[in-house]
Amino acid sequence: MSELRKDPTRAQWVLVRPRSAGRPEDNECPFCPGNEASTPPEIAAYRKEGSAPNTPGWQVRVIPEADPYFQVEWDLVREGAGMYDKITPRGASELIIESPSHEDTLATMGADQLERVLWMYRDRLEDLKQDVKIRDILITRRHRKPGSRLSHPYSRVTAIPVIFDDLRRGLRESREYYQYKRRCLFCDILRQELADGDRVVRMTPYFLLMIPYAARTPFETRVLPRQHACAYETLSPEAAADLARLLAGYFGALATGLGDPSFELSLQTAPNLHSKILQGEWATVQDDYHWHLEIVIHPERANRVGGIFINDLPPEEAARQLRAAWR
Amino acid sequence: MSELRKDPTRAQWVLVRPRSAGRPEDNECPFCPGNEASTPPEIAAYRKEGSAPNTPGWQVRVIPEADPYFQVEWDLVREGAGMYDKITPRGASELIIESPSHEDTLATMGADQLERVLWMYRDRLEDLKQDVKIRDILITRRHRKPGSRLSHPYSRVTAIPVIFDDLRRGLRESREYYQYKRRCLFCDILRQELADGDRVVRMTPYFLLMIPYAARTPFETRVLPRQHACAYETLSPEAAADLARLLAGYFGALATGLGDPSFELSLQTAPNLHSKILQGEWATVQDDYHWHLEIVIHPERANRVGGIFINDLPPEEAARQLRAAWR
Repeated sequence: MSELRKDPTRAQWVLVRPRSAGRPEDNECPFCPGNEASTPPEIAAYRKEGSAPNTPGWQVRVIPEADPYFQVEWDLVREGAGMYDKITPRGASELIIESPSHEDTLATMGADQLERVLWMYRDRLEDLKQDVKIRDILITRRHRKPGSRLSHPYSRVTAIPVIFDDLRRGLRESREYYQYKRRCLFCDILRQELADGDRVVRMTPYFLLMIPYAARTPFETRVLPRQHACAYETLSPEAAADLARLLAGYFGALATGLGDPSFELSLQTAPNLHSKILQGEWATVQDDYHWHLEIVIHPERANRVGGIFINDLPPEEAARQLRAAWR
Repeated sequence: MSELRKDPTRAQWVLVRPRSAGRPEDNECPFCPGNEASTPPEIAAYRKEGSAPNTPGWQVRVIPEADPYFQVEWDLVREGAGMYDKITPRGASELIIESPSHEDTLATMGADQLERVLWMYRDRLEDLKQDVKIRDILITRRHRKPGSRLSHPYSRVTAIPVIFDDLRRGLRESREYYQYKRRCLFCDILRQELADGDRVVRMTPYFLLMIPYAARTPFETRVLPRQHACAYETLSPEAAADLARLLAGYFGALATGLGDPSFELSLQTAPNLHSKILQGEWATVQDDYHWHLEIVIHPERANRVGGIFINDLPPEEAARQLRAAWR
């Protein structure tokens, strides 16, 4: 039996889940067109008009993970175990297959396809947030994860009944900043970075792509919308197209100019405000939080010494190299 | 120039430090007796009576790191950089050479030698805390770190002018628990674990060794002193001897019964209460915090999916296997 357990010494949730048998190795990629029957039935897809679900003809396709960590079919039960807390891992584990082409990468699929993927992120967030028992949804994208089995390009959607640690921390810090300054932390970062300039890599009508002041690893990157918005779902079609073009250039610069490093992208966005409890707990989140993308380059090489990240490439220098790598 | 920079979106400190040239490869181990001249002068040592500093004759020897991340010689300067915060990395980076024998490991050095190492941990904490500009000291011990250059056994001491993220989080959670319950969180964990029994691996007169309820990785281990104490330095000689015997058995069980996995041990203990600021900020720390050891097995294999640790070995089963591996 799988359960989310809370470590009371850190207020950190851990999914404890007995080892599963492991699926047989497929000879063929289950994500390629024609193999739709080897995945669970699709949840959503952008398809050529007239093509039926779970057949070829899709451009972007969303499926539940075959052996899911989180599942919407489970009852949401919060229980004590003596002094400890546990919750059933009710939620969702979905995969967004980003392209029919097995060989595509974020750097090669092109801005139009990237735009579809970004729009599917939006669709999944909107859809999953209709379920008020889902508190938080994280979309992540690993590129060249060491030891990864599947090379077909996909993103991961993880929806859970609590708030992710990282987001909770971000929400708390941005709320404290807002209470003190009466200004959004991220809007201030935008202004400061545009004034300084030396950590800015690219600016577009809608977005700023930059190396953060305290980047944890070399080339860690953040993408901030220039217009304040707490939730990614409010993205306009124009902003999505702009973001897709920006990211196409960025992934291209990484792939061709910086040796195609592994990376992990995550979408940091407001938790599920359809939940009344979260509306209460994070009453000011629309003012004080600001969605953004984080990209950590070579996450497996992150250097922590005694609990502190050590970054041996100053962010200003990383920004300079990334600007130079950009065509 | 090296600096501690704070990420305002997470309140997380990062050491930004231009890449150093890298030291020439030594053919001989600089930590072995006879090679004392190839390390910086020693800070402390337990030695045979009459043997001179920086010569053979030591049992445990402490040296500054050759290319230190933190250094006590730097001025402590807190500065703004526009809206951002930075501090000079004033502190200390020390290595505790645990044994004269190059081939020793924590599993082979024996309880007497382990006791000396544990006592040196105490000495270094006491000494470094005399410096009130040092806010926090973390002692860590990596075993079989992938890609590690040095195989001679050593622990690392990192002293910094801020509180480590992980400890701050622990202090906050245990304070909240105490304010709500008027009992120490860790004392309650001790009682609960002794009552449950199924995550207990070993109990001694002074310590409990257990798998935590929400272990983040298989076999993650915690060692709690059974008597409440917030700071490791208050350890009595009897308790140190007891802990050394317990850990000798534990490291032996890992090495011979569980395939000699890599691990990271860290000592979680109160910050520097000689600092008046910390006395104010953490006024109740002596009541609400409780020092302990954390050991993460195979830290490089930690499985995080969408920001949540996934542990596929239930803690109760890990405890059972570890008890069986113990001679």
